[in-house]
Amino acid sequence: MNLLVDDIGELVTNDPARDGLIGVVRDAAVLVEDGRIAWIGRAADAPAADRRIDADGAAVLPGFVDSHAHLVFAGDRAAEFAARMTGERYTGGGIRTTVSATRAASDDELRGTVHRLRREALRQGTTTIEIKSGYGLSVRHEARSLRIAREVTDETTFLGAHVVPAEYADRPDDYVGLVCGPMLRAALPYARWVDVFCERGAFDADHTRAILTVGQAAGLGVRVHANQLGPGPGVQLAVELGAASADHCTHLSDADVEALAGSETVATLLPGAEFSTRSPYPDARRLLDAGVTVALATDCNPGSSYTSSMPFCIALAVREMGMSPAEAVWAATAGGARALRRTDVGVLRPGARADLVILDAPSHLHLAYRPGVPLISEVLHNGVPQCLT
Amino acid sequence: MNLLVDDIGELVTNDPARDGLIGVVRDAAVLVEDGRIAWIGRAADAPAADRRIDADGAAVLPGFVDSHAHLVFAGDRAAEFAARMTGERYTGGGIRTTVSATRAASDDELRGTVHRLRREALRQGTTTIEIKSGYGLSVRHEARSLRIAREVTDETTFLGAHVVPAEYADRPDDYVGLVCGPMLRAALPYARWVDVFCERGAFDADHTRAILTVGQAAGLGVRVHANQLGPGPGVQLAVELGAASADHCTHLSDADVEALAGSETVATLLPGAEFSTRSPYPDARRLLDAGVTVALATDCNPGSSYTSSMPFCIALAVREMGMSPAEAVWAATAGGARALRRTDVGVLRPGARADLVILDAPSHLHLAYRPGVPLISEVLHNGVPQCLT
Ligand SMILES: [Zn+2]
Ligand SMILES: [Zn+2]
Repeated sequence: MNLLVDDIGELVTNDPARDGLIGVVRDAAVLVEDGRIAWIGRAADAPAADRRIDADGAAVLPGFVDSHAHLVFAGDRAAEFAARMTGERYTGGGIRTTVSATRAASDDELRGTVHRLRREALRQGTTTIEIKSGYGLSVRHEARSLRIAREVTDETTFLGAHVVPAEYADRPDDYVGLVCGPMLRAALPYARWVDVFCERGAFDADHTRAILTVGQAAGLGVRVHANQLGPGPGVQLAVELGAASADHCTHLSDADVEALAGSETVATLLPGAEFSTRSPYPDARRLLDAGVTVALATDCNPGSSYTSSMPFCIALAVREMGMSPAEAVWAATAGGARALRRTDVGVLRPGARADLVILDAPSHLHLAYRPGVPLISEVLHNGVPQCLT
Repeated sequence: MNLLVDDIGELVTNDPARDGLIGVVRDAAVLVEDGRIAWIGRAADAPAADRRIDADGAAVLPGFVDSHAHLVFAGDRAAEFAARMTGERYTGGGIRTTVSATRAASDDELRGTVHRLRREALRQGTTTIEIKSGYGLSVRHEARSLRIAREVTDETTFLGAHVVPAEYADRPDDYVGLVCGPMLRAALPYARWVDVFCERGAFDADHTRAILTVGQAAGLGVRVHANQLGPGPGVQLAVELGAASADHCTHLSDADVEALAGSETVATLLPGAEFSTRSPYPDARRLLDAGVTVALATDCNPGSSYTSSMPFCIALAVREMGMSPAEAVWAATAGGARALRRTDVGVLRPGARADLVILDAPSHLHLAYRPGVPLISEVLHNGVPQCLT
């Protein structure tokens, strides 16, 4: 049983063997077999297939790879958001509000939210998603968060070092000891990555290095929340430890940019966070011009960026961050794959996973040209057409 | 045959008889009969009904009123958009590209685009939409544009004075004579409103006043594209002529703001245009603080704002223009209704049109809190549940 996606007006492959940054093929067709791409070429040369989807001249892209999301949580911080936007004082507890609500929630409640947001992202074209823990902040609750995240993705990240929980506020060293020991051990069966929020007020350079090093020794890949709120050691540490990604990268020195450019570490930019906190956007142009590999992701979380929309991030990247539409599309697909060290997604070529998005538009340009408009008309995941309603 | 929308967690009514700017009722129900609202109250007190829709605790709002859209056109200006965003030189013809393509298109082609975009807007919760001509710019093509627009809305606007077409470039007075005479007569059977793009490079104060005055005398309501690209006489003229709305209002003097505040003219802000042209946003806060009535609309058009998404405009208004979420929601519903001098839409109270949006969210706050996410789960238009796929 195979399937032909036919009559594609503009196919974005991201295949470096083809022309241009995003390897566009016009008047194309894609043959899918056993969940993988079997053939790509001109529609006129397409082989026969058991089943056929007519793209009707539309643009087709690799499914989006959202390499940074926090979906395991309970509660809602809409009132905090509204207060921030209107300049009112807000006396809630910020991230600790979410930690309390998450700990108090049942497994099924958390599972409901994770599955709902995963489906919401899929409807918007996201076929690969990374999900972090980080609202449990105890051995039991971090392990539980990762176990539930694992139900919807293999790209799970242990973020016990998201913030020092209230009960450890006056002994952060003890908390880091907990993270590096029992919490890491409990997380290991469910996690592929380890991540630390390296920022003034969260974890400093020594703590960050300690946690990432022990996580790495245990077999986890490394990612870092770095340089979001101000300058800091996060990016340099990420590069030093060979992290797959340094995420946020809003406040960078020239040395930070140089370090990234000379490394395999991707700079993952999260413009949803700047949008929803009314902060200055990271300078993607500076990074691209220096030769840094850039990814775009949503940072979907209830506090600082409650969007699950990769198209929205693409539109912001073009409007606010100096990226061309093609660079933004690449960053949201191939860039995300690099940030997860994946070669089977974010690209359309024979052998790659058949994760495809059919747009309700003739070109990838429309993702930025038509901001806010739901343009995802069909999604194939592992070669299977998804029901989007 | 009546219908009960039940188990509404948060009902936004915009009814001034209720509390707060947007008149929220919690744990509410709405009874619909003959396309109108028959009753609103607490769910616990709801009457029996023939049919029931369970909102499942979600937020329900009046359908959005998009009071400014240009949907009758042919062609695509995605390449021009991409060039603008990347700072490349673009040698296309701007708006005149769209005029040529529109004139060359068949009725069915234009009809296809209008109906497609109307449905796209409906899927995003827009139940009332104004549509302008302005890409025909000849007697025949302006009348045709309005005739086709009339197929999907009663809120049609004659915008023959959108730009002076190429063939009149060296004799603008003659073009204004054409607009005021034969073109207006041909437009009259299909138009409710007359509008002029009053801007340096388009139409000056004398031309604008001449066209609006003759349109008004012929029975059309008045609206003005005013003060978008720079300071100018548009807003003052709008107030002087008793226009329902002055649209854009990006560059205003104190006298402009004062004039608006002392008038029945709504300031309609179109942040999609500033987003897609990377221009400074209008200062909604200044207008609201001065007592001006503010509406939000999409300006949906292929050149400067190809979004049909009222939720996106709400999110921008909160992020960029100093509006609270409640003010933005009011402006996108009740504000739009004021800008169209309508009392039957943009509000939920007995007798009003049963145009309702059910969100996939517990509160109206989520429209700004969750930017880019398609949150419209169901739409009732004239009391009839719409198929959104
Ligand atoms: Zn994050
Ligand atoms: Zn306009």
